[in-house]
Amino acid sequence: MSRGEQIYKGKAKIVYAGEDPDTLVLHFKDDTSAFDGEKVEQLASKGKVNNQFNAFIMEHLQAAGVPTHFLHLINDTDSLVRRLDMIPVECVVRNRAAGSLSRRLGVEEGLILEPPVFEFFLKNDALHDPMINTSHILSFGWASEDEIHAMRRWSLRVNMLLTALFAAADLILVDFKLEFGRYEGELFLGDEFSPDGCRLWDAKTLEKMDKDRFRRNLGGVVEAYVEVARRLGVPLS
Amino acid sequence: MSRGEQIYKGKAKIVYAGEDPDTLVLHFKDDTSAFDGEKVEQLASKGKVNNQFNAFIMEHLQAAGVPTHFLHLINDTDSLVRRLDMIPVECVVRNRAAGSLSRRLGVEEGLILEPPVFEFFLKNDALHDPMINTSHILSFGWASEDEIHAMRRWSLRVNMLLTALFAAADLILVDFKLEFGRYEGELFLGDEFSPDGCRLWDAKTLEKMDKDRFRRNLGGVVEAYVEVARRLGVPLS
Ligand SMILES: Nc1ncnc2c1ncn2[C@@H]1O[C@H](COP(=O)(O)OP(=O)(O)O)[C@@H](O)[C@H]1O
Ligand SMILES: Nc1ncnc2c1ncn2[C@@H]1O[C@H](COP(=O)(O)OP(=O)(O)O)[C@@H](O)[C@H]1O
Ligand SMILES: [Mg+2]
Ligand SMILES: [Mg+2]
Repeated sequence: MSRGEQIYKGKAKIVYAGEDPDTLVLHFKDDTSAFDGEKVEQLASKGKVNNQFNAFIMEHLQAAGVPTHFLHLINDTDSLVRRLDMIPVECVVRNRAAGSLSRRLGVEEGLILEPPVFEFFLKNDALHDPMINTSHILSFGWASEDEIHAMRRWSLRVNMLLTALFAAADLILVDFKLEFGRYEGELFLGDEFSPDGCRLWDAKTLEKMDKDRFRRNLGGVVEAYVEVARRLGVPLS
Repeated sequence: MSRGEQIYKGKAKIVYAGEDPDTLVLHFKDDTSAFDGEKVEQLASKGKVNNQFNAFIMEHLQAAGVPTHFLHLINDTDSLVRRLDMIPVECVVRNRAAGSLSRRLGVEEGLILEPPVFEFFLKNDALHDPMINTSHILSFGWASEDEIHAMRRWSLRVNMLLTALFAAADLILVDFKLEFGRYEGELFLGDEFSPDGCRLWDAKTLEKMDKDRFRRNLGGVVEAYVEVARRLGVPLS
């Protein structure tokens, strides 16, 4: 299982062609970025932890009926995935207020959101990932009405599944970001699910166990990711 | 028909109690504000023009079946309306890109949006009227699911009606903002429709005939409003 040519170099991953043209190799880097790529650092072992964390979550979702791009782990830092035609939109589910929602709506971090909030953001660093709605997606042709509904439905389903999974590990799933893409006319969950793209708080102490440790210079970033993995039972090499 | 006590002093209007407690008197001021109230000026006759302009539009919409709060003109600057329990949300319909949409999504002013874009904004100057979506409205309890659907449906119906009305006067309705409220369990269009809360371009020259003349210091603000009124056949005293 060898990497083909490099197709894309992102902020957290490098994407290579797979042997089968319908596949890609995702290489998870140690690079950690925040604020639309303005703050970037290397955190030792982060790529390895996130690759294995993501594999665990994707397999859990797949087993529960969520269509995902994930095929299998290749090695510590690389995974094989189905190659998708990505939709340039990020899907965010929020169970509690934090981050940009707290700032935008002037509400305290931690406020419980019931029903959960679902937001679309345009994946565009130059525009600072602006929030968009379904009518923007339709007017600009970023996705169809069916795809919009499917992205919302699957995101809320993932929220149900992962809220339960993390709760069993004494963790609160505060919010998370998903990306979807198309393969042969069907929608699949793509990209990654890791503590880089979600907020996880310790259920008892409310301690942050996610990328906010990096954003806020709290230290112990990868240590927190490893602790989350340990509690979930993610096998780390 | 006398004004009762002052109930609210807004940026463009003063709201008084009507004789009947189910009614309000809207007094249209000459004050013109932009940028969440940061830029304010008095423009002679603006209140008079907007009051009569709004009456004409509200009567046109009412005749076409849109439930509005408008009851009748009282004098040059004042109108009697049904008192509503206002929903703290602004509904924006956009037929072409301009203003905040152009900035947020990095698209050229004037780009035709098909289907039209529909956006909700939270009416909150301190937070700079942030864009919100239906899930924020539901989670924070600002309106019910039925009210959200009704606000969208009526806004798009108003767009159909007014796009045709302005087109017959050689004007392009670029975008506009509406506010709705509740009366006895039903949704009504409230507030005002005037060149203060919409964008209108001359169909031939694309000259701006709306509050952008004020925002951009183009001069001839009220003169443009009067010209729009003249083309529509709005009787101005
Ligand atoms: N299955 C897939 N098929 C095609 N592209 C994918 C797939 N999964 C993820 N991607 C894309 O690959 C890139 C992953 O690298 P990343 O470092 O996250 O990039 P970025 O900085 O753009 O977020 C992203 O742009 C993501 O949208
Ligand atoms: N029919 C109505 N019943 C109750 N309130 C209304 C009605 N129509 C408009 N309003 C409210 O009255 C105020 C009108 O004054 P305005 O100067 O536009 O205020 P603002 O600066 O808050 O926009 C607005 O807050 C608007 O929401
Ligand atoms: Mg990414
Ligand atoms: Mg107003």
